[in-house]
Amino acid sequence: MEIYRGIGVSPGLVIGTALVLDAEGVRIPARQIPPEKVSSELTRLNKALKAAAEESRAQQKSVELRLGKQLGSIFSAQSTFYDDPGLLTELHQLIHNERFTAEYAVTNVIRTYRRALEALGKDHFLSTKASDLLDVEKRILNQLLGADWEPLSNLKEPVIVLAHDISPSETATMDPTKVLAFATESGGKTSHTAIMAGALEIPAVVGLGKFLHDVAGGDTLIVDGTRGILIVDPDEEILEEYQGQVKVLSEQSGYWLAERDLPAVTLDGTRIELMGNIEFPSEAAHCIDRNADGVGLYRTEFLFAGHDTDPSEEEHYQAYVHVVQTLGPNKPVVIRTLDHGADKFPNHAEKISEERNPFLGLRSVRLCLRNLPMFKKQMRAILRASVQGDIRIMFPMVGTLLELRQCKMLLAEVREDLLEEGIPFKKDMPVGTMIEVPSAAIMADKLAKEVDFFSLGTNDLVQYTLAADRTNENVAGLYNPADPAVLRLIDSVVRAARTNNIGATVCGEMSGDPLFTQWLLGTGLRQLSVSPQNIPEIKKLIRRINLSDAEAMAEKALQLDTARDVTNYLREQKRRIQPDAID
Amino acid sequence: MEIYRGIGVSPGLVIGTALVLDAEGVRIPARQIPPEKVSSELTRLNKALKAAAEESRAQQKSVELRLGKQLGSIFSAQSTFYDDPGLLTELHQLIHNERFTAEYAVTNVIRTYRRALEALGKDHFLSTKASDLLDVEKRILNQLLGADWEPLSNLKEPVIVLAHDISPSETATMDPTKVLAFATESGGKTSHTAIMAGALEIPAVVGLGKFLHDVAGGDTLIVDGTRGILIVDPDEEILEEYQGQVKVLSEQSGYWLAERDLPAVTLDGTRIELMGNIEFPSEAAHCIDRNADGVGLYRTEFLFAGHDTDPSEEEHYQAYVHVVQTLGPNKPVVIRTLDHGADKFPNHAEKISEERNPFLGLRSVRLCLRNLPMFKKQMRAILRASVQGDIRIMFPMVGTLLELRQCKMLLAEVREDLLEEGIPFKKDMPVGTMIEVPSAAIMADKLAKEVDFFSLGTNDLVQYTLAADRTNENVAGLYNPADPAVLRLIDSVVRAARTNNIGATVCGEMSGDPLFTQWLLGTGLRQLSVSPQNIPEIKKLIRRINLSDAEAMAEKALQLDTARDVTNYLREQKRRIQPDAID
Repeated sequence: MEIYRGIGVSPGLVIGTALVLDAEGVRIPARQIPPEKVSSELTRLNKALKAAAEESRAQQKSVELRLGKQLGSIFSAQSTFYDDPGLLTELHQLIHNERFTAEYAVTNVIRTYRRALEALGKDHFLSTKASDLLDVEKRILNQLLGADWEPLSNLKEPVIVLAHDISPSETATMDPTKVLAFATESGGKTSHTAIMAGALEIPAVVGLGKFLHDVAGGDTLIVDGTRGILIVDPDEEILEEYQGQVKVLSEQSGYWLAERDLPAVTLDGTRIELMGNIEFPSEAAHCIDRNADGVGLYRTEFLFAGHDTDPSEEEHYQAYVHVVQTLGPNKPVVIRTLDHGADKFPNHAEKISEERNPFLGLRSVRLCLRNLPMFKKQMRAILRASVQGDIRIMFPMVGTLLELRQCKMLLAEVREDLLEEGIPFKKDMPVGTMIEVPSAAIMADKLAKEVDFFSLGTNDLVQYTLAADRTNENVAGLYNPADPAVLRLIDSVVRAARTNNIGATVCGEMSGDPLFTQWLLGTGLRQLSVSPQNIPEIKKLIRRINLSDAEAMAEKALQLDTARDVTNYLREQKRRIQPDAID
Repeated sequence: MEIYRGIGVSPGLVIGTALVLDAEGVRIPARQIPPEKVSSELTRLNKALKAAAEESRAQQKSVELRLGKQLGSIFSAQSTFYDDPGLLTELHQLIHNERFTAEYAVTNVIRTYRRALEALGKDHFLSTKASDLLDVEKRILNQLLGADWEPLSNLKEPVIVLAHDISPSETATMDPTKVLAFATESGGKTSHTAIMAGALEIPAVVGLGKFLHDVAGGDTLIVDGTRGILIVDPDEEILEEYQGQVKVLSEQSGYWLAERDLPAVTLDGTRIELMGNIEFPSEAAHCIDRNADGVGLYRTEFLFAGHDTDPSEEEHYQAYVHVVQTLGPNKPVVIRTLDHGADKFPNHAEKISEERNPFLGLRSVRLCLRNLPMFKKQMRAILRASVQGDIRIMFPMVGTLLELRQCKMLLAEVREDLLEEGIPFKKDMPVGTMIEVPSAAIMADKLAKEVDFFSLGTNDLVQYTLAADRTNENVAGLYNPADPAVLRLIDSVVRAARTNNIGATVCGEMSGDPLFTQWLLGTGLRQLSVSPQNIPEIKKLIRRINLSDAEAMAEKALQLDTARDVTNYLREQKRRIQPDAID
């Protein structure tokens, strides 16, 4: 048995049989051609490039139809490679000057690029392009060699696919009833392959490092896309444990399907709005699948991922319209403006790599307020889309009233521009702010007078309140949403929202953790936004909660001393209303 | 005119004439010796090493007499170089195998080390050893060459000394009436040279980068050791401006000297305790010079700086005894346990360099709680010293009740050990905690029940509350102690201290900024701890404050919206009681 840890990019737990794809695809020998054949070889290359570009466009259309425009556009980004002048020059030189075959020229040039991109490390924003280049290479080679494209589209048995890398195209052509899951050696969280896997809800783990040498086709595998784990050839005990988990999960999902249309209402009859957090437009469908009351958090970072340039106003607009049309006119969609960690922002990457403490640096709205054209472009698209449904805008990482006022002033300017240009938008589109910096939580009474709603971003709030980097294992013991200091801050924010009669949601990971559901409602929250997958479980819990009990326990938890005390108390209170649950 | 920015390591403003020391000291040619001379050359080297070590020990004694044991020990650290086996092997090899002169071997080997240390960058903890090696090299060369040591000890005219680097020895032999200030290209904040300059109160700027090629002996210079600025050949306007500042400062210091013995008492007769922040034992004398009411913050990081190993219990003990004996038995000395940023902690440097956000990582008390023998050693020394006067212990960076309880449990263990061993200590030595993590401020009501006093560390509190790295220029606009969120937190902490009848001080930079004095007293604080240099100015201000006015203004400031509003209001209120002050 071998256990590998990677990056879970699409959740789910699967046990199945391995299908191993060749680590590097086809191997092309460095064959040379006689001088008189150079010209015909160049013609062959050009034809292949043309056909490959054609094929890419066709796939774009088919993915658009199946998964929406946003995901289709992945292939339009790819198609720029086929007539990239730099690439063409290099290919021509290898064929013309060195007299190599077109196949060898293609594989030589593109693999060099790919290795260079992969060498940047999986956290680098450009590394996500490596899998796009894999697509480009395979497509051209298949044209030149007349080989069979789409090996994953004609599977007979359900398998778990293992490969060094899988391209977005290959992912898009996967049949979710045949490809149970996949796992790759390379790849990162924001690669197009990862995004595609999430959209298709195929569990996937990427960035596992070298493991293919240890697996053979037919081996039994466990893929845990939620925790980012691949287990090859599990021993009896582990296998049984995971089989048990798979059984529980499938029972749960059957049960939850039956409860899909029940409202999220407490025992005393209070309706709770249960919304979904999404990152990709296609995930709006996942919210509908779980009968969510709306999208409480639409993260727009994907629009910026894997591109060299900022997205156009039209790209923003199309994405927002797709989501709001999927949700329908009556379900709210809260769009959060760009919230990049500084390190993920292509146009500012240089400046930022110097920051010693990026979490305390130039990120999120701070970065947007230094890049006004980009920020206003996003605001314009959101305002334009607002006439299509119940769209709301939300600013992340606001720490001071000054920042909020700057954001609102820009929004007013954009409104005026649209008015002048005669472009329609909803004049009373609600404006909200994330509360995730301690100073914002402390000033919530003031901020509440200047926005329509709050959304508590607990992940950041916890890390700043406790001064503990949430990605640093050295301080993992301190980073804890159950810390009483965090509960007190949240409680005071909810109180400020209620006093000022504005909305308040929680959209951090805390909101999807059943441990906290009762406590959150007890503080007075009537809206939660969680990962679509978590909606059924949280709804089930809500339907067992009595609000007056919840209020009493919320008050009591605030008086406790430590995170450990709080966790024990909340666990006990959860067991009281849900004695059958597995912790 | 050229303006250079470096690191101010010893405050003060000086205008004077340049004395430029050779950038690299003596230049030694790579001369070889005949084989028959090798043995006598080795004898020469050994004699020189012995004499240099002797000289170093003599200087240690003389510095101990003048500036105290702690600073003398800098030279005992150096003396380990003279019989370092690795160094000796390299020197012998160059002389024996390559047949170089002893002079060349010394300069070649030691300069290679020095350059390697400097190349680590001025923030690296090892880089501070470069100036120690400069001492070692010069001493040995002077023995070999019979040259004149201590060029700075026989100056005729007052000058500002410029050099690539200055060694701790050279600094120690400076006559403060002749060396007005110094500025160096290399060096860092915690180098022994910097520490020595602070102890002698000679204004100094280090780490300025290359500038010596632009200066000639006799040039007019301005050195601003407070702001870390060197101006070479200032133009008329700048010169006049700085001359004005020097005049104001000297008038002020004369005035303040006259007020030295007046108590820090408000107009309505309330006595405020005005204490000093110190880092080196010798600075205790600066507190006495300004008639401070005690040491409100004794930072103990220096004990760990520039050493490969943690200090011994005896080294801790000697330092604490020196301070408490300087202060006398009735003035309190608050010793803060090790508060290293993770990056400055030699024994943990490897682990730490991986942290992406060191300010949110394993630092300060978090690190101590992972290194119990070291932590307990410091506690033992503090407890042992406690019988000599009014010593108090304080834990930094406490974020949760759990951490505080862990610290107190360790202290109880150490007490028991001492009791068993029959070693005397003060049983009721007060125990305090810094309040500098937002969670600690929020939980102050709980923490107050478990300590004897709070000390507000505003520098960290501001950076975490606003999620803005205090050393990052990109977010300098956000990092502001005048932010109303910060004021609210401080106010709630002081209130919790008063409700629970425990002491409360502020020891961050805010406490030494006259802008905040009135506001801080208005919240109910009756104790401030500031840099010794700031004591006269703050005292003067305190003597003009009417507490009931201050209370009203404190309340009002809490209701303001932004840092800008607060700054304007505080400035106006300061002008009300001190219309003659320069802002």
